[in-house]
Amino acid sequence: MTLRSEIAEQPKVLQRLLDEGWPEAKAAQKALAKAQHLTLVARGSSDNAATYGKYLFESVAGIVTASAAPSLVTRYDAAPRFAGGAVIGISQSGSSPDVAAVVKAARSDGAFTLALTNAPRSALARAADATFLLRCGRERAVAATKTYTASCLALAILASATAQARGGSGLSLAGIVDAVREAASREDDARRLARRIGKGERLVVLGRGYDYAAALEGALKIKELARVWAEPYSSADFAHGPRTLLERGTPVLLFASIGATLGEARRTVREAHARGARVYAITNDEGIAEKSDDAVLLESAVSEALSPISLAVVAQHVAASVARQRGRDPERPAGLSKVTRTL
Amino acid sequence: MTLRSEIAEQPKVLQRLLDEGWPEAKAAQKALAKAQHLTLVARGSSDNAATYGKYLFESVAGIVTASAAPSLVTRYDAAPRFAGGAVIGISQSGSSPDVAAVVKAARSDGAFTLALTNAPRSALARAADATFLLRCGRERAVAATKTYTASCLALAILASATAQARGGSGLSLAGIVDAVREAASREDDARRLARRIGKGERLVVLGRGYDYAAALEGALKIKELARVWAEPYSSADFAHGPRTLLERGTPVLLFASIGATLGEARRTVREAHARGARVYAITNDEGIAEKSDDAVLLESAVSEALSPISLAVVAQHVAASVARQRGRDPERPAGLSKVTRTL
Repeated sequence: MTLRSEIAEQPKVLQRLLDEGWPEAKAAQKALAKAQHLTLVARGSSDNAATYGKYLFESVAGIVTASAAPSLVTRYDAAPRFAGGAVIGISQSGSSPDVAAVVKAARSDGAFTLALTNAPRSALARAADATFLLRCGRERAVAATKTYTASCLALAILASATAQARGGSGLSLAGIVDAVREAASREDDARRLARRIGKGERLVVLGRGYDYAAALEGALKIKELARVWAEPYSSADFAHGPRTLLERGTPVLLFASIGATLGEARRTVREAHARGARVYAITNDEGIAEKSDDAVLLESAVSEALSPISLAVVAQHVAASVARQRGRDPERPAGLSKVTRTL
Repeated sequence: MTLRSEIAEQPKVLQRLLDEGWPEAKAAQKALAKAQHLTLVARGSSDNAATYGKYLFESVAGIVTASAAPSLVTRYDAAPRFAGGAVIGISQSGSSPDVAAVVKAARSDGAFTLALTNAPRSALARAADATFLLRCGRERAVAATKTYTASCLALAILASATAQARGGSGLSLAGIVDAVREAASREDDARRLARRIGKGERLVVLGRGYDYAAALEGALKIKELARVWAEPYSSADFAHGPRTLLERGTPVLLFASIGATLGEARRTVREAHARGARVYAITNDEGIAEKSDDAVLLESAVSEALSPISLAVVAQHVAASVARQRGRDPERPAGLSKVTRTL
């Protein structure tokens, strides 16, 4: 039961990162603080962590943050000028050739480059100026769990250190380990939610703002483990067209945290219900939990910016439960490999 | 038949933009050329044009290009520092409050801001330093067609002018109007492809590099008009997990242009077939057309960077045909409005 034990391991992994990661962040913060722009490059779950990182680096550190289009480096030999900026490559294995190629190109161009990886001797780590180690220990399950949340927390630590180096205020990381411990303990609730989601082939997954990253990661896990067409949208993008997909009975999985997007989350529940859809929430807000058809309600106090990390942990349990209820073994997902090498 | 006539109108609209748009691009090029980074902000179809614009601005003009997270402005009051950069807001109606809000915030912060819109007196146009008008005439169909391709061509003109102002070489725009004329004439072929795609509820849509934008836009059109769960991925991202969705008979719609990503497109066809999926291509490459289960093969010569514009025109016909074959009127898509106001 590797997947289940790695989900449970996350409080310990995140605590270790808080205990040991700051010196590495401090070593990188000056170079990051000087960057006029930041590019994040990643694939799969790491790319969802990158989306979370974009929100943090833009809001906390104030740096305009792009997501790399790796093909411009690997296919077209037409990369932008990275000089004056910084590039962070994120890959648990560090062996995605396109991620390393973008970091290498940016470094040749004079940008500061950082590898965020669990593998200190990987191609990615060798390509970058500096490394921030995830310290997760080996991740055996095919689906990324602890490396995902560790990547998110590492980005929060880095954004916070960078903000401080720019003379601003950092991000309070208080409570995140307790919140993740609570989330990891809610397997029974996640199983109930998975049962309510049912046997349909389709699922809309929604989140806004910081929680958009949790929606992306939750949907990818459900897709990978349960082979359900779980499609994530920011609730604002969803309104611009895809909401026409909602029919009577369509299940919607909503990620919602206490804070600035709560009004929109409430409206999302109302509008989905008006179209006959069923709404299942992963949330720390009682009102959203009550208004939904069912919910996993977290009680730990954690800031809005960090909440998507704990919501994503509940989503890992939901994905594994949806898979098991369909007779799929989430420990051995069909057609997937642990390391995917794309160029 | 507004939608059909607006699809047909596109060669004229794009020719007008080539004839009249350059002075506006030249007026903006110096400010854009000085920008250390660029942020694009848009929703829906315009956001797919923005993805295309990112590839162009990074590859042709060399400027690192981000996609805005509007909630950081509209929900969290925590925008990044836009100063030193430029922001382009894209909206056919110019009345999406969140797009205008990001442009307004960036302008207050000292960034150069440009509105790309079909509505010269819109909120977006008023918020920006300068406007690049799409000159499409009124678009009556709910689904964006001519405003989408005009936004793409406008971004190509702007990226090209900016590259020249930076002392580099521009982009040859030769052949694009002819290529779009050919694409707009291929309704019969698109109808055949739509019939082959069949009545299933699900469709994977793939493209890589420049063609990724065509995949995004093709999938959105099919979703909006036909209510099919058409889900787009770059073929590299697809390999990192979602490809597990492919089962025997799953239809795949592939966008592929002659050029640097063709080897990957061929491999995508092979791998999809190995999993029993059916592949339908919109392409200008004979080899891809032959290897696919069916294809719309365009013959016009156009550069790789511009090809996604003509491929997207074929996709408009495919989306409308898929809708009609399911008894849905693409002129009156259910549950959608022409202008969506999100914050």
